[in-house]
Amino acid sequence: MSDLSVDNLLSIKSLNKSDINLIFRTADNFKKIINQPIKKVPSLRDITIANLFFENSTRTKLSFELAEKRLSADIINFSSTNSSVKKGETLLDTVQNILAMKVDMIVLRHSCPGSSIFLSRNVDAKIVNAGDGSHEHPTQALLDAYSVKQHYSNFKGLNILIIGDVLHSRVALSNIFCFQKLGANVGICGPATLVPKHYKSLKVEYFKDLEPALLWCNVVNVLRIQIERQKLKYFPSLREYSMRYGLTKKNLDSLKKQILIMHPGPINRGIEISSDVADSKQSIILDQVENGVAIRMAVLYLLAKKINK
Amino acid sequence: MSDLSVDNLLSIKSLNKSDINLIFRTADNFKKIINQPIKKVPSLRDITIANLFFENSTRTKLSFELAEKRLSADIINFSSTNSSVKKGETLLDTVQNILAMKVDMIVLRHSCPGSSIFLSRNVDAKIVNAGDGSHEHPTQALLDAYSVKQHYSNFKGLNILIIGDVLHSRVALSNIFCFQKLGANVGICGPATLVPKHYKSLKVEYFKDLEPALLWCNVVNVLRIQIERQKLKYFPSLREYSMRYGLTKKNLDSLKKQILIMHPGPINRGIEISSDVADSKQSIILDQVENGVAIRMAVLYLLAKKINK
Amino acid sequence: MSDLSVDNLLSIKSLNKSDINLIFRTADNFKKIINQPIKKVPSLRDITIANLFFENSTRTKLSFELAEKRLSADIINFSSTNSSVKKGETLLDTVQNILAMKVDMIVLRHSCPGSSIFLSRNVDAKIVNAGDGSHEHPTQALLDAYSVKQHYSNFKGLNILIIGDVLHSRVALSNIFCFQKLGANVGICGPATLVPKHYKSLKVEYFKDLEPALLWCNVVNVLRIQIERQKLKYFPSLREYSMRYGLTKKNLDSLKKQILIMHPGPINRGIEISSDVADSKQSIILDQVENGVAIRMAVLYLLAKKINK
Repeated sequence: MSDLSVDNLLSIKSLNKSDINLIFRTADNFKKIINQPIKKVPSLRDITIANLFFENSTRTKLSFELAEKRLSADIINFSSTNSSVKKGETLLDTVQNILAMKVDMIVLRHSCPGSSIFLSRNVDAKIVNAGDGSHEHPTQALLDAYSVKQHYSNFKGLNILIIGDVLHSRVALSNIFCFQKLGANVGICGPATLVPKHYKSLKVEYFKDLEPALLWCNVVNVLRIQIERQKLKYFPSLREYSMRYGLTKKNLDSLKKQILIMHPGPINRGIEISSDVADSKQSIILDQVENGVAIRMAVLYLLAKKINK
Repeated sequence: MSDLSVDNLLSIKSLNKSDINLIFRTADNFKKIINQPIKKVPSLRDITIANLFFENSTRTKLSFELAEKRLSADIINFSSTNSSVKKGETLLDTVQNILAMKVDMIVLRHSCPGSSIFLSRNVDAKIVNAGDGSHEHPTQALLDAYSVKQHYSNFKGLNILIIGDVLHSRVALSNIFCFQKLGANVGICGPATLVPKHYKSLKVEYFKDLEPALLWCNVVNVLRIQIERQKLKYFPSLREYSMRYGLTKKNLDSLKKQILIMHPGPINRGIEISSDVADSKQSIILDQVENGVAIRMAVLYLLAKKINK
Repeated sequence: MSDLSVDNLLSIKSLNKSDINLIFRTADNFKKIINQPIKKVPSLRDITIANLFFENSTRTKLSFELAEKRLSADIINFSSTNSSVKKGETLLDTVQNILAMKVDMIVLRHSCPGSSIFLSRNVDAKIVNAGDGSHEHPTQALLDAYSVKQHYSNFKGLNILIIGDVLHSRVALSNIFCFQKLGANVGICGPATLVPKHYKSLKVEYFKDLEPALLWCNVVNVLRIQIERQKLKYFPSLREYSMRYGLTKKNLDSLKKQILIMHPGPINRGIEISSDVADSKQSIILDQVENGVAIRMAVLYLLAKKINK
């Protein structure tokens, strides 16, 4: 099979296992390309992509932009700060206008859950969800799973732990779906206030304490504590969070095994993860970033193939 | 004739009818190009264009940027938010600095009426006025007229109505000049407070009420009510404006004819135009956006031809 | 010799005279290129450059961007306003992330003195310092010296005067080092409050008054008074500064010689420099801007040559 079963990348939930593996195989090729002296291919030179970021983003936006440039696509960037959104235009009108300028694909980051799905039903362009509120962030989950795959060829029986604010995290939700589809078991760990009430329906195991959770897992994905959003209190203080759930060298040394450390970034050193853990050999944080470009190239390439010209 | 009579695109007023028709014929070619799989030509690959936007803009800026990319020009973007304008530099110094970096053309959006004309007299580069305060917005008028031309081959005797805030609108002024030069009659409709006092010298007909205005016209251009600028009161409330001047399906159904609906965007659904009208078959709002890229390619191409290299 | 003695451009202090002359010779070639109809070369088409501007900048950023485009490099832009710096990420983590996306060179503007040096010791990429706080701004000094060289082939015995806020100016410090390395004598002139206390160790001559300073020099570099930063008072008022240190036609006419006038821009007309002086034939302010692109192309080109692929 050489085509995705879907026409847009809206969520991990809508992908099947073959889709995910096709994306991984395609990313393998692109990862080779971005490690060559000339890191570019002409694959998408007839494609125009609009990056619509209605929420601030640094790494995801840069990663998509670089992926698009490596594929030779034409790019236009649009972010909410200089936009007519302030002038009261609807999202759909904004996008229809951009598409009328002959744009083929939309990469959308929006604070509203379901915004990508809504768009995909109403416009004639390929949509890539680059994060929709607290719903999904599918390319992040794909690059996370792809990064694990470089170390464990088989997901079957693998125990993957997500630590932190699972409740508000689109990364967590996409991760859970993605690792489960690939055959892994997913556990979550964090204060009870940051765990979704429906976690049992997600078929994940919940660990209230870090120690047993670490004993259980092979891979840990440490979520970022969003310091800048701490208005509502979900835990007493950063210091207490850090003492109970912050990953330190001491935690890891007490284990009789090596576990793989992931983090979607940007990291808060000394809060959810200590510096020595972030910079340790078990940490694949920077591999994730590199793989992100390859995965996004693969997704854009596979969706572009489905455009009827 | 295959050259513009002018060296810069500063206003519709400074163009003659042959210029406008030359721009339209050139846009015909570029419209074909942007509808091909590969939407690009190398025409301006030796040209560097600076987009200087001292006022916020989304669609005009994106439209120019795409037009420039389709023509393979090199582009630099400069907007007031990250500029040395805040440091007290004069407009002329800012532009002279940019030109010293070997820039050939300037696309200028500025809140000051006459800014493009002022620049054209003081610098050695082709200037395209992308909106100068409440004065003119020539590429908008050109794309509006070009969009009408796809439906009416002859402007002679055509009645074109502009509804809304004619007083503050550069779109309205450029439209009036453009349609009149092409042979059409122009009418304006809106509250008396939003009509320029010198309207008689513009040779337009003024309609105080919407109904007789709609009976008179073949084409209507609905101006946007700039909600965000409503500090001074020109009408009692948005609701009252909407009831008296908002274009609805009911207005149109009462007519014994089909009129063409235009809007420069972004639209306020339910204020100056109802959703069913905006999305109706008579509406050519999205065609205007598509034509905007072709018109801007034509303008840039024709001006670039006049650069002595 | 055809290679730089350094792997990064961190400061003028770290360059030797041969490096500076190599950059000048290379800039000569690039200056020819940017004055041709096709202003581009494919030299850096296999290089990706990230422009990281953590401080506002217009002309330096545009100049680097154009230099990169003329060299056909791939570019990503990152500025602090839309960055994860706000989210508490360290500078090193931000840069490591960007480098993991396969970026070869970093152009860094940062408010912290020494930030470029710090980065160069911790990351595996070529670093170009585009201004680090009040420390250095090496490409500015190179373009200044290069601009002088177009008029004086020999720096030996040349007297170069810097007027203004030498205390806070990275331009002044880089200028002093650069002109001295090339063999010129450097003098500084301004209110005593704006002179660094250690000026004697810099081997510059200090002039309290403008008149004797102008009698002494062949070339004058007028620094910008940063009106927008005037919180702490270093002089009683702009008007008094302007009366004592502002360069006017009257000052110049009283001299029995022609001196060359430079300014790093943006200029405050009527404050540190009068309009007639800024626009006079002795002024090479716009030449500096043009030379800036050529110098930056040279620096990027010479550093890129040292990348092991």
